[in-house]
Amino acid sequence: MNSQSAITPPPAPSYRRHGNLLVLSGQVGVDESWCPVTDTFHAEARAAFGNVRRVLAEAGAEPHQILKVTAYQSDLEHFAAYNEVWTEEFPDLRPARTTIGAQLFPPFRVELDVVAWLDNPGATT
Amino acid sequence: MNSQSAITPPPAPSYRRHGNLLVLSGQVGVDESWCPVTDTFHAEARAAFGNVRRVLAEAGAEPHQILKVTAYQSDLEHFAAYNEVWTEEFPDLRPARTTIGAQLFPPFRVELDVVAWLDNPGATT
Amino acid sequence: MNSQSAITPPPAPSYRRHGNLLVLSGQVGVDESWCPVTDTFHAEARAAFGNVRRVLAEAGAEPHQILKVTAYQSDLEHFAAYNEVWTEEFPDLRPARTTIGAQLFPPFRVELDVVAWLDNPGATT
Repeated sequence: MNSQSAITPPPAPSYRRHGNLLVLSGQVGVDESWCPVTDTFHAEARAAFGNVRRVLAEAGAEPHQILKVTAYQSDLEHFAAYNEVWTEEFPDLRPARTTIGAQLFPPFRVELDVVAWLDNPGATT
Repeated sequence: MNSQSAITPPPAPSYRRHGNLLVLSGQVGVDESWCPVTDTFHAEARAAFGNVRRVLAEAGAEPHQILKVTAYQSDLEHFAAYNEVWTEEFPDLRPARTTIGAQLFPPFRVELDVVAWLDNPGATT
Repeated sequence: MNSQSAITPPPAPSYRRHGNLLVLSGQVGVDESWCPVTDTFHAEARAAFGNVRRVLAEAGAEPHQILKVTAYQSDLEHFAAYNEVWTEEFPDLRPARTTIGAQLFPPFRVELDVVAWLDNPGATT
């Protein structure tokens, strides 16, 4: 059970696209009600990647179409745990990536920036 | 009146483009003489977004063609003020975005990274 | 002579591409055996840019095709040294750039994020 209060969603869409390029807003570990899922780092990272997959699906892309993941982490001590979740998420073709330490909004310890490609140069949104 | 001394412009162009992709150098709150505009966070953020709009115009793009804004802030305590300026800048179609805390060059408190699309795949510059 | 122990390569490819877009994983100052080259900041930055050039060459691109360099630095006190290496690397056409302070994995003081374009929309990898 998740007992944390919901955060306010940022005043921005979860993605924008043009041509074959898809860029996502930074994704954190929240559930579908925007309540933080931060009991463990593993749970938080899985929730953040789950939100990445959900936004990709909305935009018409799949995880193998992710070109790059930039992970901002509040403390690099979670790096080994992050790699465990990373290899779960990408068992085969993996994105390029960068991982750096930065200040995040509490209670979050990881935020994911994603750039992906789209199959069809559909409508710009 | 702005009483701060001019900073040295970085040894980089304000943008590069290829095909329909436009990427900007990080934009901060300086006036046309590269003097910091940092009396208040609101003024600084408005100046930084003003520089984004100016560079976009030079490159032949408009604000609705911004796909992503990554905002680096020296302290996330300015987040509410940032959101006020954000909604002024983007009353309608908004970019995807990520906002994180990072170390910036004093006296700046916010720096904006922008990716946008261009109408015409013009000359690569 | 480089006396530092090798680091573990991250579980990610050094680049991904789609169409004319090339994105690199964050590059740091390591030699071909993944041993840190960090005796001086200059040496480290040159090694990091050397790795950028090596990955670009693998992907079929040249330095003038770099659109953007985002440099994460553990302390902005090295900014002057970074600019010296930057102007060595890009004597003519320079990329757009952003430079911010962030937490990096010791012993590294600089990490480079690169976006470039490719001549031919070859195979997606």
